[in-house]
Amino acid sequence: MTIKAILSLAAFGLVLPGLPATAQTELPADDSLREAALDLFAPIPQQMDQIPRPDGDPTPITAEKIELGRSLFFDPRMSVSGLISCQTCHNVGIGGVDGLPTSVGHGWQKGPRNAPTMLNAIFNIAQFWDGRAPDLAEQAKGPVQAGVEMSNTPDHLVATLKSMDGYVEMFSAAYPGENDPINFDNFADAIEQFEATLVTPNSAFDRFLEGDNDAMTELEKRGLQAFMDTGCVACHAGVNMGGQDYYAFGVVARPGAEVLPEGDKGRFTVTDTVDDEYVFRAAPLRNIALTAPYFHSGQVWDLREAVQIMSSSQIGTELEEGQVEEIVAFLRTLTGDQPQIVHPILPVRGDDTPLPAPM
Amino acid sequence: MTIKAILSLAAFGLVLPGLPATAQTELPADDSLREAALDLFAPIPQQMDQIPRPDGDPTPITAEKIELGRSLFFDPRMSVSGLISCQTCHNVGIGGVDGLPTSVGHGWQKGPRNAPTMLNAIFNIAQFWDGRAPDLAEQAKGPVQAGVEMSNTPDHLVATLKSMDGYVEMFSAAYPGENDPINFDNFADAIEQFEATLVTPNSAFDRFLEGDNDAMTELEKRGLQAFMDTGCVACHAGVNMGGQDYYAFGVVARPGAEVLPEGDKGRFTVTDTVDDEYVFRAAPLRNIALTAPYFHSGQVWDLREAVQIMSSSQIGTELEEGQVEEIVAFLRTLTGDQPQIVHPILPVRGDDTPLPAPM
Repeated sequence: MTIKAILSLAAFGLVLPGLPATAQTELPADDSLREAALDLFAPIPQQMDQIPRPDGDPTPITAEKIELGRSLFFDPRMSVSGLISCQTCHNVGIGGVDGLPTSVGHGWQKGPRNAPTMLNAIFNIAQFWDGRAPDLAEQAKGPVQAGVEMSNTPDHLVATLKSMDGYVEMFSAAYPGENDPINFDNFADAIEQFEATLVTPNSAFDRFLEGDNDAMTELEKRGLQAFMDTGCVACHAGVNMGGQDYYAFGVVARPGAEVLPEGDKGRFTVTDTVDDEYVFRAAPLRNIALTAPYFHSGQVWDLREAVQIMSSSQIGTELEEGQVEEIVAFLRTLTGDQPQIVHPILPVRGDDTPLPAPM
Repeated sequence: MTIKAILSLAAFGLVLPGLPATAQTELPADDSLREAALDLFAPIPQQMDQIPRPDGDPTPITAEKIELGRSLFFDPRMSVSGLISCQTCHNVGIGGVDGLPTSVGHGWQKGPRNAPTMLNAIFNIAQFWDGRAPDLAEQAKGPVQAGVEMSNTPDHLVATLKSMDGYVEMFSAAYPGENDPINFDNFADAIEQFEATLVTPNSAFDRFLEGDNDAMTELEKRGLQAFMDTGCVACHAGVNMGGQDYYAFGVVARPGAEVLPEGDKGRFTVTDTVDDEYVFRAAPLRNIALTAPYFHSGQVWDLREAVQIMSSSQIGTELEEGQVEEIVAFLRTLTGDQPQIVHPILPVRGDDTPLPAPM
């Protein structure tokens, strides 16, 4: 039975054959469990050259692009206020998120959705909860212009960059041979190249996938088995345990309006197709233990509760307490090595640098 | 003539004897210039063990305290909103400041004064523009509680720290043998220990002081001579080129209300002494090229203009254009090696961690 088929069965509220009603999932031998898991998941590569290239871009990722992207990512002067950087909402120290229900941006305005992590985002099929950006470069262009986030414009941003000698040098080094290397596309490209390095290999789950039976406890392994048995895997598979396709939130039973606000119709606003109402990209589950609160609405702080909501709304099952415990234990094995980023020393403003405009 | 005597002469608007009216300062031989400079200034130590201990504290700075302090410094969850950290206003990437006239804090409120840098702050006699905190630990307790900054309370902060296993471990390691190591004093102490490591040695000026004649250009050396000749040194001396004593802003001529707002009476609010009206701690000039805008009001973006305002308001001299150029060139030699800080991976929130309260 394919995972799509499992999901469509679940969509009709059918109880899946073989789903145990017992509190404790039966555990196969390690090798069988690993084999089954490797059919559905893959570890995050340890080596940078095994990470997919942004856009399938044939030009090499260079150290100059990554360093430029790192500076841009951390530079609050990329916002019109001079206060907000990519790092503000995608904090490398707390799993690539801001730990808020929905982000707070320019003028302390609340954004509409929970900030997704940029860690491992290179493995997603598209960016944002509704997938409206095909890649990380396109994603980077969004918040910088959003009135409730960084509230900048491409022209103002480019003028800011061109006013600082340090950025003039860095863009020339990163995009050699270009007549006018400081432009909005290269700004976004450099951030993408940096973000493509932000991966978190070496989680306990990945070490198990790679052959280390001791990397996971028995409880965690039961959780992996339950994760596959109960149908979670229908949406959360692949390297990133999600991020690969779109699904209606509430395919079986719609959760309450607090978790699924009626005003946010998800992918519908991208495709203008009725079938896409309340459809979202399945959340990648890597480092999920670090990225509370959960869902696009950011209204659920407890991973146990998030698992229960998913199970009742998406697969039509009320998981038993024991299964929830197992699955949560498994989800905690998805925390990988977090990137160690040296905070960049940023270019010094020039005489012509536009003044920050906090309001 | 002592520097205090020079300043009091200047206070009466007297033109100092020996002040050249020419545009170009006469330059003595390098050795004489260095000797004169070493009477007034000192280089920032290259070795951590030469840096003064906070408070003259006899206990050792430990790696555990510094690492804890680094985490606390970068952790936005130390604010009640979960959005603002020490790093927000004291950004290690832009000279330890926020690059705003006055800081923006909780609820996007504007603070009353420009954020001073924490880089080399260990060399200051006291902290804040009005010196109201005797040391960096006492300073750290201020913004975290200020309603317009991080808007937290000690109790809420301690509850937040105690709710995270990672902080429980880090405080125990940093303050071994203490029954209840997570408390507001240790929070502030750890930040102080971290900040005491944030020094910027190896500036061109320091290399010149240490014997390298080629570290400064002739223009910069003339600027150093002019800085000493014209009386700047009366307030800006020592390791930190300032930060050691308090002076009235406008001792000779009060600048306009934009630069010196009437409502901010400076040290008067600390000492309640009329003599301290509009008195501020002399700004340390280390890395001054990185820390625009200038003065407690943060209303001056151009270092040339800042020098001119200081000269007319503090020493009663209208510097000639050439002297301003020299002094600014010298001030630019005060930029040292900026600290390379790995962004900490912060503790994960626990089940009992208070929720962020953006408003």
